[in-house]
Amino acid sequence: MDSASIVFCPIGVIRTQHREPDSTPIQPAFAEDCEGRVEVFPAFIEGLSDLDGFSHVMLIYYWHQAGAPQLKVKPYLQDIERGVFATRKPCRPNPIGLSIVELIGVDKGALSFRGADMLDETPLLDIKPYIARFDCVQSTRDGWQGEVDEQTAAQRGRRETNTRGHPS
Amino acid sequence: MDSASIVFCPIGVIRTQHREPDSTPIQPAFAEDCEGRVEVFPAFIEGLSDLDGFSHVMLIYYWHQAGAPQLKVKPYLQDIERGVFATRKPCRPNPIGLSIVELIGVDKGALSFRGADMLDETPLLDIKPYIARFDCVQSTRDGWQGEVDEQTAAQRGRRETNTRGHPS
Repeated sequence: MDSASIVFCPIGVIRTQHREPDSTPIQPAFAEDCEGRVEVFPAFIEGLSDLDGFSHVMLIYYWHQAGAPQLKVKPYLQDIERGVFATRKPCRPNPIGLSIVELIGVDKGALSFRGADMLDETPLLDIKPYIARFDCVQSTRDGWQGEVDEQTAAQRGRRETNTRGHPS
Repeated sequence: MDSASIVFCPIGVIRTQHREPDSTPIQPAFAEDCEGRVEVFPAFIEGLSDLDGFSHVMLIYYWHQAGAPQLKVKPYLQDIERGVFATRKPCRPNPIGLSIVELIGVDKGALSFRGADMLDETPLLDIKPYIARFDCVQSTRDGWQGEVDEQTAAQRGRRETNTRGHPS
């Protein structure tokens, strides 16, 4: 471990219905029907106070099955190679995942949420409240994402398979 | 280092005008006039391709001066103790910072941006494109944040001092 290394420890684990990377939706927007559960470890439960007032939270987690980092990747939604930092693909130098999910409820150390787009048993690193005045940017320019029509995005984002049985 | 530890390495460094935590704005929304610069290390520059098409990016970084973790904190914008995961305070179990900033330009390995709300020399962990269809949630319930009026938020968020010279 070199001197610049930064060490984090999971504060909990995320439980979802997704067991295979290839069939896991790529964003909460494409996982509206997928409910998940965050199990926060006992030592950190006190930090969840007041979170239930928020409708949405950011889950920040470790992509534990990201594989080797790549600097050029084909994004899920388009077959053109892009710089990895211009995509949300997991295989990045530091595989830190971020999902903005809808909070259903908080019961002691367990959060239930809608929009589960991560694998079961994903190690959780942090929870932040989604705060519209900071996080909802109304007017943006979305680069190559703007070239992807809604229908293609939804089909690929949900990992719907084509007639050959492969994600299309 | 226990077996659950997760090790990350900086991919670059963030340069800003802010040298003191107490006078650093608390969100990009309160740092409109503060430009910053990301210096990505040479090994990762290839991953920046196509990023210049996006108007906003998420910078994910290590709060290197966060101090000891606390589970109950008083947020910057309110004098009422809250669970740390219901706030954006740095002193959390894993001090991972997230800022949604406006990208001004990309020049080889350097990103210039508007909305610098982090300390100078902050270690950078990841860059993600801000994508409106995934990240801008239009209808939210914002918990205790909804109790903070815009004027108070702006004054505290910009770390404006009161007549005693302390942040108010």
